[in-house]
Amino acid sequence: MIVGEVVGSLWATRKDKKLNGLTFLVVKPFSYDNQNQREYFVAVDNAGAGIGDTVLVTKGSAARISLANADAPVDAVIVGIVDSLEIDHE
Amino acid sequence: MIVGEVVGSLWATRKDKKLNGLTFLVVKPFSYDNQNQREYFVAVDNAGAGIGDTVLVTKGSAARISLANADAPVDAVIVGIVDSLEIDHE
Amino acid sequence: MIVGEVVGSLWATRKDKKLNGLTFLVVKPFSYDNQNQREYFVAVDNAGAGIGDTVLVTKGSAARISLANADAPVDAVIVGIVDSLEIDHE
Amino acid sequence: MIVGEVVGSLWATRKDKKLNGLTFLVVKPFSYDNQNQREYFVAVDNAGAGIGDTVLVTKGSAARISLANADAPVDAVIVGIVDSLEIDHE
Amino acid sequence: MIVGEVVGSLWATRKDKKLNGLTFLVVKPFSYDNQNQREYFVAVDNAGAGIGDTVLVTKGSAARISLANADAPVDAVIVGIVDSLEIDHE
Repeated sequence: MIVGEVVGSLWATRKDKKLNGLTFLVVKPFSYDNQNQREYFVAVDNAGAGIGDTVLVTKGSAARISLANADAPVDAVIVGIVDSLEIDHE
Repeated sequence: MIVGEVVGSLWATRKDKKLNGLTFLVVKPFSYDNQNQREYFVAVDNAGAGIGDTVLVTKGSAARISLANADAPVDAVIVGIVDSLEIDHE
Repeated sequence: MIVGEVVGSLWATRKDKKLNGLTFLVVKPFSYDNQNQREYFVAVDNAGAGIGDTVLVTKGSAARISLANADAPVDAVIVGIVDSLEIDHE
Repeated sequence: MIVGEVVGSLWATRKDKKLNGLTFLVVKPFSYDNQNQREYFVAVDNAGAGIGDTVLVTKGSAARISLANADAPVDAVIVGIVDSLEIDHE
Repeated sequence: MIVGEVVGSLWATRKDKKLNGLTFLVVKPFSYDNQNQREYFVAVDNAGAGIGDTVLVTKGSAARISLANADAPVDAVIVGIVDSLEIDHE
């Protein structure tokens, strides 16, 4: 699972009907060394996230398990809003 | 999910019959920092997309859920045409 | 889905019996900018491909859907031979 | 499967209820050549791991198979604590 | 599917019981251009492989299909020992 920051949102009127009602947010993955900035991606919100929130994202087949509609063609879902992330040992 | 631009198309006469009737488009993924240009890939269209459209793409096992034929051996599907993509917070 | 060129083949006598009868080809993925050459990989042929053919490859769980035997432990399958690939808009 | 070190932990109060009761740990993947440090990621603990432990992580759809609740939207799980890792041949 | 060399092994006493009885080997993926050395990973052996063998590895959900126990939380399995790998066309 990936931690990132919600930095934007996406709208699409013409889309697969199975995506109706979902909120699409743009996530900027955290880079712990600031060397290899990973690309932004789009995730469906399932945690009430908003711009600026630090979020936990699940990708792959597990993503749609989070949604009420398991038939949604979605490969990334925001499953939580991060309260704290502690890196203790490096 | 990935945002990209439709930049081309692909034809294949000799193919798995389960792919018959599908439209294959070439997608150029957006790179937010223009540093690490990601490779183009091929996705099946399920949103009526055309050359030059900005599209939302689902990859992996979720891709074939979007299609009417869930037995299509497809790992990337265009599930929406993007109306607007707002990056608010960086 | 990925486009590549068939550049070789692989033989393995000692293998999972569920792979018996399959043809393993080495695929060199196309790189559109020739900067980040991606690594070759091995895919099972399901389109009658041969050395030098440009092919369409499906990866992940969708790959084995293409095969008659859905129990084959395979994560990449050649699902078509490309007739033309047009990049119209860059 | 990936070997890494547990370097931190994550808390999220507002989350998908199907994640309740799970422990989220931050894993730093081992890099064998120290050249391409891979990004840290978050995995659910299913082996009683703690900070500083070297762990074995399963990703993708196999991850949730490890958990008692197969409906957990999780894509990475710590499935073992590594006693020894021997690289014999290079 | 990936070709690599078995370079080591891993032991874990404290682990998900569904992993009991499996052999974990460390695989060094082949790099065809020696430029981007990919990271070593751990795969379960299902072909009787040993140190120094060149092996064929299946990743993702297809991996556990190879094992007798499809409930094993495993994302990479050695499915064959490579007899020959011919690159004919470059």
